[in-house]
Amino acid sequence: MKVTIKDIAKEANVSITTVSLIINDKGQRFSEETHARVKTAIAKLDYQPHYFAKNLNKTKSNTIGFIVSEITNPFFAELAKVIEDVLVEQGYLVLLCNSSSDREREERYVDEMLYRFVDGVFLAGTVSDNAHLLEKLKKRKVPYILLDRPSEYSQTNGIFIDDFAGGVEATNYLITHQHQAIGCITANEHFSNIHQRAQGYLAAMASQGNTPVVEIADEVNEYSGYQLAGKLLDKGVSAIFACSDIMAFGVYKAAAERGFKIPEDLSVIGFDDINLTHFMLPPLTTITQPTKAIGEHAARQMLEMIETGNLVVPNTVLDIALKTRSSVIVKQS
Amino acid sequence: MKVTIKDIAKEANVSITTVSLIINDKGQRFSEETHARVKTAIAKLDYQPHYFAKNLNKTKSNTIGFIVSEITNPFFAELAKVIEDVLVEQGYLVLLCNSSSDREREERYVDEMLYRFVDGVFLAGTVSDNAHLLEKLKKRKVPYILLDRPSEYSQTNGIFIDDFAGGVEATNYLITHQHQAIGCITANEHFSNIHQRAQGYLAAMASQGNTPVVEIADEVNEYSGYQLAGKLLDKGVSAIFACSDIMAFGVYKAAAERGFKIPEDLSVIGFDDINLTHFMLPPLTTITQPTKAIGEHAARQMLEMIETGNLVVPNTVLDIALKTRSSVIVKQS
Repeated sequence: MKVTIKDIAKEANVSITTVSLIINDKGQRFSEETHARVKTAIAKLDYQPHYFAKNLNKTKSNTIGFIVSEITNPFFAELAKVIEDVLVEQGYLVLLCNSSSDREREERYVDEMLYRFVDGVFLAGTVSDNAHLLEKLKKRKVPYILLDRPSEYSQTNGIFIDDFAGGVEATNYLITHQHQAIGCITANEHFSNIHQRAQGYLAAMASQGNTPVVEIADEVNEYSGYQLAGKLLDKGVSAIFACSDIMAFGVYKAAAERGFKIPEDLSVIGFDDINLTHFMLPPLTTITQPTKAIGEHAARQMLEMIETGNLVVPNTVLDIALKTRSSVIVKQS
Repeated sequence: MKVTIKDIAKEANVSITTVSLIINDKGQRFSEETHARVKTAIAKLDYQPHYFAKNLNKTKSNTIGFIVSEITNPFFAELAKVIEDVLVEQGYLVLLCNSSSDREREERYVDEMLYRFVDGVFLAGTVSDNAHLLEKLKKRKVPYILLDRPSEYSQTNGIFIDDFAGGVEATNYLITHQHQAIGCITANEHFSNIHQRAQGYLAAMASQGNTPVVEIADEVNEYSGYQLAGKLLDKGVSAIFACSDIMAFGVYKAAAERGFKIPEDLSVIGFDDINLTHFMLPPLTTITQPTKAIGEHAARQMLEMIETGNLVVPNTVLDIALKTRSSVIVKQS
């Protein structure tokens, strides 16, 4: 026999009105204990909403989890902030969880979000090999959206850019400026999207018959950029493509230490267009990830998934653009 | 009559062993529904632990809330990461909440953390005027620690640095380098700790009989630093004290746009010593907040408060230090 609100009320020992208000998200007047009793009863009786119900009749927590791989990378902090601003306006709160690119930590945070009945989960910069993790979310019917880094286990629910094309564009921009000895600082395959940018670089270099010079980082930050830029400069490159702006900071320092001026002695192009690129000296030419557009699209898509109960949405791939600033010039003879 | 575990078991319709395991944090084997029933029963019966109980007999969630005013400021992101690394090692998860310096949002997040039975709350860069907020935490007996910015409503539970002394030291360093026309970029009183740094500046300037030149920002970021630096430079200062490193980024850009070289034409000193200061060109001289020490102390203190049930700890004030890099030289005639 189909479970009804009346059964929930009886199990939780509250009135039918109370149950109805709570599951329609109008139960602010009730105590936490009452909410918990109703929630427990719903879970215990495996209550399914009426087919014609106006909304999901699901207990909403009005919170959304945002699991991010590296909160100290300005790109992710800015993305989180955009999403949060949209969601807070709609009455939600966002719980940020920093996984520090650790698979186990990421999974623990997903478990925690599920345990706490969040209404949805963003996975920004997810760690590869997470079929298991996505299965948990699907099984609990919790909407999720992948950001920045695709997962090989999900063909849907992502909002990305074309990292490969971005890598091609960045490299071609340097090639157009007569550079041939172009170095690339990227990250290992674990960081699949950054790795894709380097694939774009390799393709662009191959089409010119240029010899690629690649340095691969195990962490994506200003320190790794600095160390690997040093190696590239010692190999005599005239230009460097740093696959993440935060690593470009390190490139600038490595160049300065060797007495190289940017762009006169070394052209540099980055990727992301974090706010701080405006303030680098000279301002960094880079590939723009439309952070504001990504964030706003992500927030609105999540709201829609929560409201409609639709758990599967096709991937969205937003356009990248070349942001020309002052760190690239024609190769000097 | 005193409520016992037996009463909880009866109310929640589980065995006494189940209750005991759950409240001693050994209940991983049980379902979320079981945990919720026990939690509800505990709240309903207002269960108080036995006097001689070995531990608190309190349902632990093993999560800690970290409410931060601005996650896009690298100082806060770095602090959050230090604290998280210590806590995750001890089996906790950290829920980061970004209040964007909004009082209402900060309060909603505190409510949310309490609703979710977190074991403790960090308030980093708390908004002023939050007596009400701290009262809620005290009433629910949830340990809290204030970081970075003191609250006028709490004489305890804080881990700070001496912002005033830091402001004095930064200014004196410029004075020692023969600067007199020294500008200061600070933030409004809302940002009480940053405001204190400017008070230090004012005191140091007054003791030299120098005329202070102060610009006050309503937001603390690279953009406000840039705008206000422009105003100071138009007033002909030979040195600038930026009360937060992130604003110093803006100072560098404003100087470059006017053809001023740092340090030759303009000396600059910052405050915080965020990682990126190493990578500014030239590397920024600044007042170091010992972020690692603050974070580790904060995490350990929180763990101790949770374990002992001690809700009040005296303030800790850690030492600042002057980090001499390359952005300050003797005033050029």
